[in-house]
Amino acid sequence: MSETVQLAELSWPDFAQRIARNPVVFLPLGATEQHGPHLPLNVDQVLPTGVANCVAAELGGLVAPTLPYGYKSQPRSGGGEQFPGCIGLDAATLSLVIRDVVCRLAHNGVRRLVLVNGHFENAWPAVEGLDLAMRELRRDGITDFVAMRLEYWDFVERSTLDRLFPDGFPGTELEHASLLETSLMLLLREDLVDMEKVPSDGPADFPTYDRWPLRPGVVPASGVLARAQGSTAEKGQWLMDDHVRLLSAALRKEFGL
Amino acid sequence: MSETVQLAELSWPDFAQRIARNPVVFLPLGATEQHGPHLPLNVDQVLPTGVANCVAAELGGLVAPTLPYGYKSQPRSGGGEQFPGCIGLDAATLSLVIRDVVCRLAHNGVRRLVLVNGHFENAWPAVEGLDLAMRELRRDGITDFVAMRLEYWDFVERSTLDRLFPDGFPGTELEHASLLETSLMLLLREDLVDMEKVPSDGPADFPTYDRWPLRPGVVPASGVLARAQGSTAEKGQWLMDDHVRLLSAALRKEFGL
Amino acid sequence: MSETVQLAELSWPDFAQRIARNPVVFLPLGATEQHGPHLPLNVDQVLPTGVANCVAAELGGLVAPTLPYGYKSQPRSGGGEQFPGCIGLDAATLSLVIRDVVCRLAHNGVRRLVLVNGHFENAWPAVEGLDLAMRELRRDGITDFVAMRLEYWDFVERSTLDRLFPDGFPGTELEHASLLETSLMLLLREDLVDMEKVPSDGPADFPTYDRWPLRPGVVPASGVLARAQGSTAEKGQWLMDDHVRLLSAALRKEFGL
Amino acid sequence: MSETVQLAELSWPDFAQRIARNPVVFLPLGATEQHGPHLPLNVDQVLPTGVANCVAAELGGLVAPTLPYGYKSQPRSGGGEQFPGCIGLDAATLSLVIRDVVCRLAHNGVRRLVLVNGHFENAWPAVEGLDLAMRELRRDGITDFVAMRLEYWDFVERSTLDRLFPDGFPGTELEHASLLETSLMLLLREDLVDMEKVPSDGPADFPTYDRWPLRPGVVPASGVLARAQGSTAEKGQWLMDDHVRLLSAALRKEFGL
Amino acid sequence: MSETVQLAELSWPDFAQRIARNPVVFLPLGATEQHGPHLPLNVDQVLPTGVANCVAAELGGLVAPTLPYGYKSQPRSGGGEQFPGCIGLDAATLSLVIRDVVCRLAHNGVRRLVLVNGHFENAWPAVEGLDLAMRELRRDGITDFVAMRLEYWDFVERSTLDRLFPDGFPGTELEHASLLETSLMLLLREDLVDMEKVPSDGPADFPTYDRWPLRPGVVPASGVLARAQGSTAEKGQWLMDDHVRLLSAALRKEFGL
Amino acid sequence: MSETVQLAELSWPDFAQRIARNPVVFLPLGATEQHGPHLPLNVDQVLPTGVANCVAAELGGLVAPTLPYGYKSQPRSGGGEQFPGCIGLDAATLSLVIRDVVCRLAHNGVRRLVLVNGHFENAWPAVEGLDLAMRELRRDGITDFVAMRLEYWDFVERSTLDRLFPDGFPGTELEHASLLETSLMLLLREDLVDMEKVPSDGPADFPTYDRWPLRPGVVPASGVLARAQGSTAEKGQWLMDDHVRLLSAALRKEFGL
Repeated sequence: MSETVQLAELSWPDFAQRIARNPVVFLPLGATEQHGPHLPLNVDQVLPTGVANCVAAELGGLVAPTLPYGYKSQPRSGGGEQFPGCIGLDAATLSLVIRDVVCRLAHNGVRRLVLVNGHFENAWPAVEGLDLAMRELRRDGITDFVAMRLEYWDFVERSTLDRLFPDGFPGTELEHASLLETSLMLLLREDLVDMEKVPSDGPADFPTYDRWPLRPGVVPASGVLARAQGSTAEKGQWLMDDHVRLLSAALRKEFGL
Repeated sequence: MSETVQLAELSWPDFAQRIARNPVVFLPLGATEQHGPHLPLNVDQVLPTGVANCVAAELGGLVAPTLPYGYKSQPRSGGGEQFPGCIGLDAATLSLVIRDVVCRLAHNGVRRLVLVNGHFENAWPAVEGLDLAMRELRRDGITDFVAMRLEYWDFVERSTLDRLFPDGFPGTELEHASLLETSLMLLLREDLVDMEKVPSDGPADFPTYDRWPLRPGVVPASGVLARAQGSTAEKGQWLMDDHVRLLSAALRKEFGL
Repeated sequence: MSETVQLAELSWPDFAQRIARNPVVFLPLGATEQHGPHLPLNVDQVLPTGVANCVAAELGGLVAPTLPYGYKSQPRSGGGEQFPGCIGLDAATLSLVIRDVVCRLAHNGVRRLVLVNGHFENAWPAVEGLDLAMRELRRDGITDFVAMRLEYWDFVERSTLDRLFPDGFPGTELEHASLLETSLMLLLREDLVDMEKVPSDGPADFPTYDRWPLRPGVVPASGVLARAQGSTAEKGQWLMDDHVRLLSAALRKEFGL
Repeated sequence: MSETVQLAELSWPDFAQRIARNPVVFLPLGATEQHGPHLPLNVDQVLPTGVANCVAAELGGLVAPTLPYGYKSQPRSGGGEQFPGCIGLDAATLSLVIRDVVCRLAHNGVRRLVLVNGHFENAWPAVEGLDLAMRELRRDGITDFVAMRLEYWDFVERSTLDRLFPDGFPGTELEHASLLETSLMLLLREDLVDMEKVPSDGPADFPTYDRWPLRPGVVPASGVLARAQGSTAEKGQWLMDDHVRLLSAALRKEFGL
Repeated sequence: MSETVQLAELSWPDFAQRIARNPVVFLPLGATEQHGPHLPLNVDQVLPTGVANCVAAELGGLVAPTLPYGYKSQPRSGGGEQFPGCIGLDAATLSLVIRDVVCRLAHNGVRRLVLVNGHFENAWPAVEGLDLAMRELRRDGITDFVAMRLEYWDFVERSTLDRLFPDGFPGTELEHASLLETSLMLLLREDLVDMEKVPSDGPADFPTYDRWPLRPGVVPASGVLARAQGSTAEKGQWLMDDHVRLLSAALRKEFGL
Repeated sequence: MSETVQLAELSWPDFAQRIARNPVVFLPLGATEQHGPHLPLNVDQVLPTGVANCVAAELGGLVAPTLPYGYKSQPRSGGGEQFPGCIGLDAATLSLVIRDVVCRLAHNGVRRLVLVNGHFENAWPAVEGLDLAMRELRRDGITDFVAMRLEYWDFVERSTLDRLFPDGFPGTELEHASLLETSLMLLLREDLVDMEKVPSDGPADFPTYDRWPLRPGVVPASGVLARAQGSTAEKGQWLMDDHVRLLSAALRKEFGL
């Protein structure tokens, strides 16, 4: 029988025993953010957690509890905080959470950590949080700690994208609540997807700048930035297969497994 | 068919529709903390979430995603961060998370918020986070926002405690990983409880002060501060019944429902 | 002739000489907070300072200047900041003050420190401040520093409480501006007590939760949470005797004096 | 004779007079960062300042002093802080600088502000700094302030990129110290460019993740991430023409000039 | 019989009554800092408190509890934190304390506040703390609050200085633990002064710059920066008379009393 | 041919080579602040940079990019932030910038650093920033780093001041936008000076205290605190000669050059 990968479902003696083997520990970075009328607010929690669970199972790793709140949604990548249901944190807040959790994991004996990001806007606060943690850990005398930080969607074959987008891939930034996320949600939490509500007002045509306040009409009214039509669980499986295989390979290489 | 109470499982249009009815919104405050050899690290996430889910169902409310990391475990109430598996945040970090989430919920139209705490050590950083949020919201012109903050375990009848502790209730502070939490976990997540590992080294006999560094031997080696023997799912149900009934009554009164 | 215990009344060469003997140093944590119509705003400064002075005299210790401003008064333990005369600090502010003072004392050679708290609401910001200081001191290479943190009122015999409360002790949280504090003030600063103004609107009957904004009428209008009638300097002496004896004993044990 | 565009070269009465006309004010965001062996450390200061100066002259605007220190260099976009000469700020520091300068400009009467970023890594701390400033300004009752934030290199025609990169454009992230920046520097500060030192160890082939600590060999030893060969001042002029024309057009549209 | 000027010795109803008359409220800013072998560490607490008490009595004002810890001692004005007994705060910490206390006083109805500084190094953190408080109070809708900030020693007649220093006044910065402070201490707390220990190693001859780390020998070994010989309580009375008279006059003018 | 002293005009290999020789590195601290109707807003950037450039040339040193934004202008030394064109930072912001830049320079191998301040109000935030940096560097194991902090105007002969002010020197604090700064600007950037606009409303006659809000009429309407009449480039040269000679001598002594 396989062991659980859920770090927080272990008792402390079991946690101590698992950590003694120096496993890869995953920290999924999520968000509570609008994802159009056909997807729930928790897409960015479900997807990186789902990927992390699979890769952890593959590598005998552990998955720490997912951060459910992320950096504030931005118009050009997530529609923006003006959409109902967006519960974003300030950058300093998120960086401190990541700094604290990373430091505590390292002080618990973790030496191989992977931050699996599922929300584009988290990328930079996560870089900062990790950098602050590395600085503090050096001062605490911990020098053999290795951490990685990545967006799960970057672990995909060009050929898979070509198969999914016969007319050309619009790029990850616009892929908010669109074909990739919708297909993966159909794979992992079909009960939370309503394909009948997929809108057709995209894709967004953003200017090459940010503006405060946001000009009305710039973001598609639905909150979907590209297209979600044609999403299927099968396509979600193609993506998940790539994510798990490529990410596992990268981690094996980086951690010398 | 009943509606979901999970805020983050709604799409943004559904969220907007639900919020328009002015529901009670719950924010469970959890932790990742040792709970003895027989319970998982996520007890303080599971229990307040479970209580919030039931009360929200009762009142037509919504439950926002649970905060999975809380304030640093303290020896006299949780055993302390020196136990494997304790992943605590600094007070400023936790207060900022709570400030940000509360402010964003209020800006989303929430006017009735309940912070349901499941981790003793979260109480004061939550007070501070809420106080900071109230100050900011006043400056943003939001003056009709009402928030409550509570520990779920305080909503229990004296008679129930007498039934559970025929020899006298040791007090909530020592009830860490003990009869109350173990019984509730047997009710909600029996799969994560191993009654065969219930230790017998408690109850703790703490001095009336904190000491840095911690003196070895002060905290029971198991991390269980009182006694967990005799825990059953039935007793968990007694507790849950009290929690849901008394908490619902208090909220109905305070929010004029 | 006995030496002074007031740290700040020493010249720097005398301070250096005293510190070289490795004395116990006390830092009283006070507040400026309402204490009913019969007591002054400085009760929480006077009492922990008074206790610290006596224990320091007993042990040949030193008392650093009392912090006169503490964490914001809370309704269920102090009446709340809406009372005139409450001058409370934010949690981060207070924790930073404590962190800085503790670090500076340790860098001055202090190795035995005791934070004597006289204001219930200070407890958690003090825990955080001390924890931050311990972390910084480790990074500065100071590893033999021992600190304690306590509420003076916890050092009392059960028998004394029984003598003081023949009808049962209501608990320390409600003991705000009530029998214990009033009796101790009669002992230490009788000139600041006006027994004719002792109110009779208590004891408070608080709900088991916090609410923002505070519901009018929840806190007794006088700001006294239990009962102050029957307070006498003699009872204050009973308490002071316990506090000094039990606290001295605890410190002798913990510091190996 | 044309007026100066340098905000800080005006006396205060002249500044007040200029601001009364509601000009577009530019704040260039720079860095002190390695740019290969053939370019100076101040490339990211020189270029956005140069672009801002031209656009300001076009629109009758003003250019505030350039921020000379930016966010910490990252391996995949700038080579990383381990290169000599990288003087990066923490994210919180940079966001506070931007928050303060934006707030002060707005309180001085500026209503049209453009942050012209010249350092990829500044993008997110600038978003946060602006967002914090907008929040504070709303609380100060300033509601008609409009701000834009952009990377100057995004204002370029596809046809220009095709002309510059006959073999295909590698993307802006890798364009560090490469053809675009080198050509613009030849245009603006030829004296600081040494084309004989252009290296040939690029382009970089980065993995799709960050790793702490950085694996040796991942970043080209020269610090040049793509190719700088073939850079000329003429090509710099093509770019500058695009930047000025397209950016001016965008600002005219957004500010209704 | 005259009323007390000690704010914290009032009960809350008496405080409310006094505040209703719109009195001048004083907040003395002190320090715990070396003052040579003949003076105690609390000189900078005793002196501004003493001045504030007298001026408050003159004007019917109130004196809030003195801040006993101030900004870190600097070599050129206080000898530096390397002297035993210096317990200085970081600038951010001190500014936050002042911000919080000022805001709370204003929210309590105080409209005339005077920060009486007794420690040179506090001047700038006090400016910042007050500036932050004024900004927050404006956002809270409090616009009629007036605050002053001053060093008590600046309220002295030229003729008095000439009388005290027949050979010329060395300037306030060097007047650390010297004639002025020693004479005032002889007036207010003679019991804490030991004139036999007045050193003769001054006056200091400082370079016109700061250096980290401090060069040994730059600061007089005694910690006295100028000369304390010839100090008397009578001279202290001359100073106190000036301080009280000139400060009262300035406050009457500024507050329209 | 002499080498450049501009740190940021070097390529990274040249920077590394220069740093290997352990040069003195200068960090000028400037401001964007009103300087009367005859001087530009950037006086406090131009002057310390000009001095640093000369001294660096003298000593074979390097000048890092000048900080163009400083601490908030104060009425008694700079006229105050209410003047158009004052773009001041909060104290915490400025201290963090200085802390970060100093730390990064030290981690780059710099061991001799000089902060050359050109804006009176920067002095204390610079002290704090340097103190924070020294603390962090000690924790990073860097113990041989020496830093100096100074105001350039303090490096002047008494005889020069006597020559410049036959009627007596009014003191540096009032010398804002007055004879000294105007003469130096005429020397360094004559194009930015308009001697026809020199006002005659000074000198200011300030009270010995700060007041919030500022009383109208206290600061001369021109923003010039003393007198600027009679300024010439020749006088600027006298000053510059003193500054460079005395500062070079001090650095040679302190750094053992």
